[in-house]
Amino acid sequence: MPLFTTTRRVQFSETDMAGIVHFANFYRWMEETEHEYLRTLGLSIVQKQPDGRVIGWPRVSTSGSYSAPGRYEDVVECRLEIQRVGMRSVTYQIEFWRDGTRLAAGQMKTACCLCEPDGKLTSVDLPDNYRSLIRESLPPSASSSPK
Amino acid sequence: MPLFTTTRRVQFSETDMAGIVHFANFYRWMEETEHEYLRTLGLSIVQKQPDGRVIGWPRVSTSGSYSAPGRYEDVVECRLEIQRVGMRSVTYQIEFWRDGTRLAAGQMKTACCLCEPDGKLTSVDLPDNYRSLIRESLPPSASSSPK
Amino acid sequence: MPLFTTTRRVQFSETDMAGIVHFANFYRWMEETEHEYLRTLGLSIVQKQPDGRVIGWPRVSTSGSYSAPGRYEDVVECRLEIQRVGMRSVTYQIEFWRDGTRLAAGQMKTACCLCEPDGKLTSVDLPDNYRSLIRESLPPSASSSPK
Amino acid sequence: MPLFTTTRRVQFSETDMAGIVHFANFYRWMEETEHEYLRTLGLSIVQKQPDGRVIGWPRVSTSGSYSAPGRYEDVVECRLEIQRVGMRSVTYQIEFWRDGTRLAAGQMKTACCLCEPDGKLTSVDLPDNYRSLIRESLPPSASSSPK
Repeated sequence: MPLFTTTRRVQFSETDMAGIVHFANFYRWMEETEHEYLRTLGLSIVQKQPDGRVIGWPRVSTSGSYSAPGRYEDVVECRLEIQRVGMRSVTYQIEFWRDGTRLAAGQMKTACCLCEPDGKLTSVDLPDNYRSLIRESLPPSASSSPK
Repeated sequence: MPLFTTTRRVQFSETDMAGIVHFANFYRWMEETEHEYLRTLGLSIVQKQPDGRVIGWPRVSTSGSYSAPGRYEDVVECRLEIQRVGMRSVTYQIEFWRDGTRLAAGQMKTACCLCEPDGKLTSVDLPDNYRSLIRESLPPSASSSPK
Repeated sequence: MPLFTTTRRVQFSETDMAGIVHFANFYRWMEETEHEYLRTLGLSIVQKQPDGRVIGWPRVSTSGSYSAPGRYEDVVECRLEIQRVGMRSVTYQIEFWRDGTRLAAGQMKTACCLCEPDGKLTSVDLPDNYRSLIRESLPPSASSSPK
Repeated sequence: MPLFTTTRRVQFSETDMAGIVHFANFYRWMEETEHEYLRTLGLSIVQKQPDGRVIGWPRVSTSGSYSAPGRYEDVVECRLEIQRVGMRSVTYQIEFWRDGTRLAAGQMKTACCLCEPDGKLTSVDLPDNYRSLIRESLPPSASSSPK
């Protein structure tokens, strides 16, 4: 059972002339699933600090593989797992299913960063509340393995 | 003769399952044409002020009409005219042509705004250099009419 | 009271460097609201005909005006009205609200078209089921005015 | 020296509220670089067959890693290499550079498919002209290694 599941409907503007979901949209969906999961924990990927700087989560690396085409108006189930909670990053595994068919699967490694007003990004440790809330959301069997 | 002309090629991800350019992309192209025109004048729509605030140009209103479908790999000519240089806004007229066929035409009214670090937007007068450089770029016949 | 209302949350990828929703996204949202409304009537904007041709709904013209910025994670109410049911077109009016603030309002005129396999689009009369189901969904006071 | 190089400018709508290029755009740029390379060979990723079916190139898998942020108006160099020419697929490696800084690097494995009018996709061998033109474009040292 995935850690978190949500659904979304394929929109017309997400299709291309081949009549199927353009692959780049799966990356937006991965991100939207991540953010929706974090909201269920009361977290946001944009967190203003008291000093005016912002904690953000730029991507370190992403990947996706596509096994079946998604089509207009399909209702797609987005299943999120957490693969690793690192000191300064979180790695997600997300799958997209329509009925019993897996359309695509992907990974996203995100780094916790402090964003300066001048746009500079500095990698920092996960804030305590992020780490603890994400850890607590993990299934018991997994809670010890991710470090 | 338009004030400024550029070309762009229709990309695969800009088409939809009807096999034609999705209409919302024309709005991105209008904006890209506007920005390219401003760059020819040495201007940018993001101008940091000495005090850290930023001059930006949010849209007030936009419109478009579509007369012929654009298709993958079409080379589209983007023709920009300036309809009005106001105290605090500029209104552009942009047309998209493929060979002798007009695909679409649109308008964009943009307001000059001061963007505070907290995200607040305040409408302000056009900076002098914007006003003068835009005015100087207009054809002689038009230079008196837009106010 | 609007004819149809739905909500959507502003996604991270829909913001731009000004920290607000990029205006072109409102056009995608207009379309998504239109399609969601049609689904409540059991209709789709892609309807395959027995002869293999497809009834589609390309846009004739669209417009939008922007009165307040939308921001990341805002929950936006999308309110759809029908302005006109023509012989071969439907004109929608859509507004976007966050709490008591109107962010944007727009119009979309869509034409009913027969899409040939070779990509040719021909304007045709609204199919009877579209016309009658849309008409029946209109509030009593409005049912006589749109033609 | 890369097999093929092109440049593109970062557009305003490609940035997000963090002030940097949203990562999903790098996937669109990978695809646009692939298509531009193929056009230099006289090839297109949409090739209508005499029988009305279409040869297309859906993605099998893609990946990207991000090392430095791209910003509005940056001119980005897109460098394409071919990693493998398979029987039924081509694998590209694409890097994005701004001056001496690598912003991102990615891979894209694309399958050659026959697209039926009903939307069904069937994996097929690369057409002879694709295989030979791509092979001929490879540098001499590499021409024997990719299979």
